[in-house]
Amino acid sequence: MSNLKQFWHHLRVYYEDTDAGGVVYYARYLNFMERARTEMLRECGADILSCQQQHGVFFVVKNVSVNYVAPARLDDNLTIATTVTKLGAATIGMSQNVFCGPRLLTEGTVDLVSLNAAGQVLRLPDQLRHKLNSIINTQ
Amino acid sequence: MSNLKQFWHHLRVYYEDTDAGGVVYYARYLNFMERARTEMLRECGADILSCQQQHGVFFVVKNVSVNYVAPARLDDNLTIATTVTKLGAATIGMSQNVFCGPRLLTEGTVDLVSLNAAGQVLRLPDQLRHKLNSIINTQ
Amino acid sequence: MSNLKQFWHHLRVYYEDTDAGGVVYYARYLNFMERARTEMLRECGADILSCQQQHGVFFVVKNVSVNYVAPARLDDNLTIATTVTKLGAATIGMSQNVFCGPRLLTEGTVDLVSLNAAGQVLRLPDQLRHKLNSIINTQ
Amino acid sequence: MSNLKQFWHHLRVYYEDTDAGGVVYYARYLNFMERARTEMLRECGADILSCQQQHGVFFVVKNVSVNYVAPARLDDNLTIATTVTKLGAATIGMSQNVFCGPRLLTEGTVDLVSLNAAGQVLRLPDQLRHKLNSIINTQ
Repeated sequence: MSNLKQFWHHLRVYYEDTDAGGVVYYARYLNFMERARTEMLRECGADILSCQQQHGVFFVVKNVSVNYVAPARLDDNLTIATTVTKLGAATIGMSQNVFCGPRLLTEGTVDLVSLNAAGQVLRLPDQLRHKLNSIINTQ
Repeated sequence: MSNLKQFWHHLRVYYEDTDAGGVVYYARYLNFMERARTEMLRECGADILSCQQQHGVFFVVKNVSVNYVAPARLDDNLTIATTVTKLGAATIGMSQNVFCGPRLLTEGTVDLVSLNAAGQVLRLPDQLRHKLNSIINTQ
Repeated sequence: MSNLKQFWHHLRVYYEDTDAGGVVYYARYLNFMERARTEMLRECGADILSCQQQHGVFFVVKNVSVNYVAPARLDDNLTIATTVTKLGAATIGMSQNVFCGPRLLTEGTVDLVSLNAAGQVLRLPDQLRHKLNSIINTQ
Repeated sequence: MSNLKQFWHHLRVYYEDTDAGGVVYYARYLNFMERARTEMLRECGADILSCQQQHGVFFVVKNVSVNYVAPARLDDNLTIATTVTKLGAATIGMSQNVFCGPRLLTEGTVDLVSLNAAGQVLRLPDQLRHKLNSIINTQ
């Protein structure tokens, strides 16, 4: 599902994802990106529930940007390619691009911050930081 | 906004509500119905937060059914007509129909149950029960 | 993915599916059911695009009902079990239940009607009817 | 609803908008922003349907970015403040910030491009351009 530097998540476009313009609704790409991040973190040993229950860590999006290049359509099979591009004490920066086959549809970036249950900034768990450090791509 | 027996909630259809069929996505009517119920309960003095914080009451949907008669479209101005049809110790039954002007689009029914934070069935707060009793329409 | 009589679709619950009650939002089960129906029809040789482009057939939901038994939660792995229960000239009735492991979460029924692009009722394509007839479960 | 330079759109947060984190799901702000843009264009005499049917104009999002400052919660009454910041032959740049009372929750920017039904770039209708020119805020 992923190489050293990039993680791929695949999903199908259903009616729920589309709008009356006949294409995927612009906000839905953020849903797709969040699914891909969740699965990437799971593959890095940091699934949501163990982050919350064992480490008391909640990931929150600080900012997101998306550049829309071409539209996805009903029944398309999409690939979300996620790369870790920045790593701070409590932050993770990612690039997340959506493809349909070889065609680039959207280019996105997102910054996450890790918080405790009280909403205070919390260092990333060491194990996760080490894992992310091994796959970071800073080009 | 409402007569004695029926509560009307108005909303606009945006792109987010539609799908590639050019009409409102079938699940979105449940969103519309929930907005209308929330505003009806607010008008009955039972807004969500005071229910939860003062009475420890959470409303949960036990079942829902929708009959789709005609489609809603982008930019339509819809009216959701809500009527209380049944009242139990801890349950509220409602009829919720969606109209575009005079045209009936969907007919729905929903049963709610009131629970405490632990998920146990809880009697409806007396004040809310009295209010709902005064607007119930059992025809 | 399916036996003769029943089709299983698996999906993960993400943040987008949940609400502030900590559980899956009640309307989202209709999204899950639609994904499962889409994949079931694809497995029966009737994917959305070939239905529309080769046969001029569009499937529309006539009615849906859901009985909520127990809540799904974040990160749950759900199974939607779909059974064809009725077959008419232009209609398909289905039972669609959602499970988390062995636990039943929701029981649903849905009736579809097949229309042409002008919105007129259209007989089901013969090949699809034969396939559905071979998997119908009328108990 | 708006002064010369800024347009305000008000909306309520419902369960559908929230997630299991107890706050509004990050992608929903794009829904809110789109509702506010739609109403702003309507107030400028350019509602969606007359744009499409009279002018053959469809607005498409080219890019969006959101900076998340503080979370919105269930039942909050939000205000989306929209300002036109750039105007090209076929493009409109906007700033869209979401507030809960006086508190800034999110800062967003979005660029729209106007297309014809075939997806080709199309000059903005003159009347809309003149109206937007009169309310542009380039600070």
